[in-house]
Amino acid sequence: MRIARYTPASGGPATYGVIEDDAVVALDGSPFDGLRQTEERTPLSEVTLLAPVEPSKVLCFGRNYAEHAKELGNEVPEIPVVFSKFSTAVVGPDAEVPYPELTSNLHFEGELAIVIGRRCTRVQADEVADVVFGYTVANDLTMRDMQRAEKQWTRAKGFDGSCPLGPWVETEIDPGALSLRTTVNGEVRQDGTTADMLLDVAACLAWVSQTMTLLPGDVVLTGTPAGVGALQRGDEVAVTIEGIGTLTTRIAAD
Amino acid sequence: MRIARYTPASGGPATYGVIEDDAVVALDGSPFDGLRQTEERTPLSEVTLLAPVEPSKVLCFGRNYAEHAKELGNEVPEIPVVFSKFSTAVVGPDAEVPYPELTSNLHFEGELAIVIGRRCTRVQADEVADVVFGYTVANDLTMRDMQRAEKQWTRAKGFDGSCPLGPWVETEIDPGALSLRTTVNGEVRQDGTTADMLLDVAACLAWVSQTMTLLPGDVVLTGTPAGVGALQRGDEVAVTIEGIGTLTTRIAAD
Repeated sequence: MRIARYTPASGGPATYGVIEDDAVVALDGSPFDGLRQTEERTPLSEVTLLAPVEPSKVLCFGRNYAEHAKELGNEVPEIPVVFSKFSTAVVGPDAEVPYPELTSNLHFEGELAIVIGRRCTRVQADEVADVVFGYTVANDLTMRDMQRAEKQWTRAKGFDGSCPLGPWVETEIDPGALSLRTTVNGEVRQDGTTADMLLDVAACLAWVSQTMTLLPGDVVLTGTPAGVGALQRGDEVAVTIEGIGTLTTRIAAD
Repeated sequence: MRIARYTPASGGPATYGVIEDDAVVALDGSPFDGLRQTEERTPLSEVTLLAPVEPSKVLCFGRNYAEHAKELGNEVPEIPVVFSKFSTAVVGPDAEVPYPELTSNLHFEGELAIVIGRRCTRVQADEVADVVFGYTVANDLTMRDMQRAEKQWTRAKGFDGSCPLGPWVETEIDPGALSLRTTVNGEVRQDGTTADMLLDVAACLAWVSQTMTLLPGDVVLTGTPAGVGALQRGDEVAVTIEGIGTLTTRIAAD
């Protein structure tokens, strides 16, 4: 099942809904309290999709694919690297993100995103199915020059617009071996598979929830495969994960 | 004026209020929408104080006092160090925080906390008075061994309970030269002044808001003076900032 968040093109409040063919069927309330479908069905062409969830926090794994660690001249970490983004960083599908003032090396990083469905802590492998609501696509936009200059990555990875999410949450998919492909202006730049993650979904959740409680709607980014690179003003970057969908982001032209 | 958040000892929802002598006068709604006092006055002895705000994010400066950087064997940073805590890390005054399982070196760090009152970005020095709601006291609890082991400090500084805040927000104080004193079981361990901050309040806000929008209730921790050290199970740590108040936290005994 695919759960989206949207506003009707005619305006109105943000609403969760279930994607059915070329339409979205509104849900009554939050999907984290149970999926109660209404009779309100709107063609997808008449809605604006928003980021599919509103995370209280986004926890992100760095260097979770060996070939990506290598391409930036880094070792595969002995201890997982976890950084964070914030609610103010999240934008939805088809967002236009300004090229940040403080970088001259803005990078894309296509990633599988885990969406949490239940408050949880110290998640065990056999609890993953219970606590995960589903999966969506993320782009971990990064000011690479600032990331290299600053000891902690809070500003370089947490800036406004740095976390495009979408287009929806797929609730029925095995994340173990999905192809992940990123294009920039139609040219393939990343062509990987989630099977190459060093820590899989269960291991990622175990690691971050060892010290922190995860809340419904919280998001965990699982790292990016090789092929990252710079974006220019006016570029269109699209991340596609097999069985989930395509997340497109435009970098503003000026 | 001192703004607290509390629940009546008899139960009921969390409420914002103004401290008046030994009582709290309830506010109608959020203080970020204007201070509308009600007639509901409750003795402080009959309420439980909560963390005075519910931040969407807590951004924190590391090594912002030269003597503290030195005591841990670090240089004064050429580029400010910013890390983060999360809503799930925040606890209120007089909280009992479990000694985290994953450390054998839990440290206290008493800090001045800036509370944001208005949505803001790229804050200029002359806008500080407009965007700051007030100041409270924080304890940046840290798993020092994990902080040293992990490249990013997300887990070591962002764990559940790692951000005691309180006892209230003081809205009318100049933060420029306040004494800051931390005691453990009554013994003075930190005795500093905010005048020794390398980046002052205006500079901290300018730095973090260069890339990120700050929201009402968001909190910025401004670093800790020298004297940090380990806490043991059963310890009581109290951070007092002149003109604001004392934030007491107990580390659970088992």
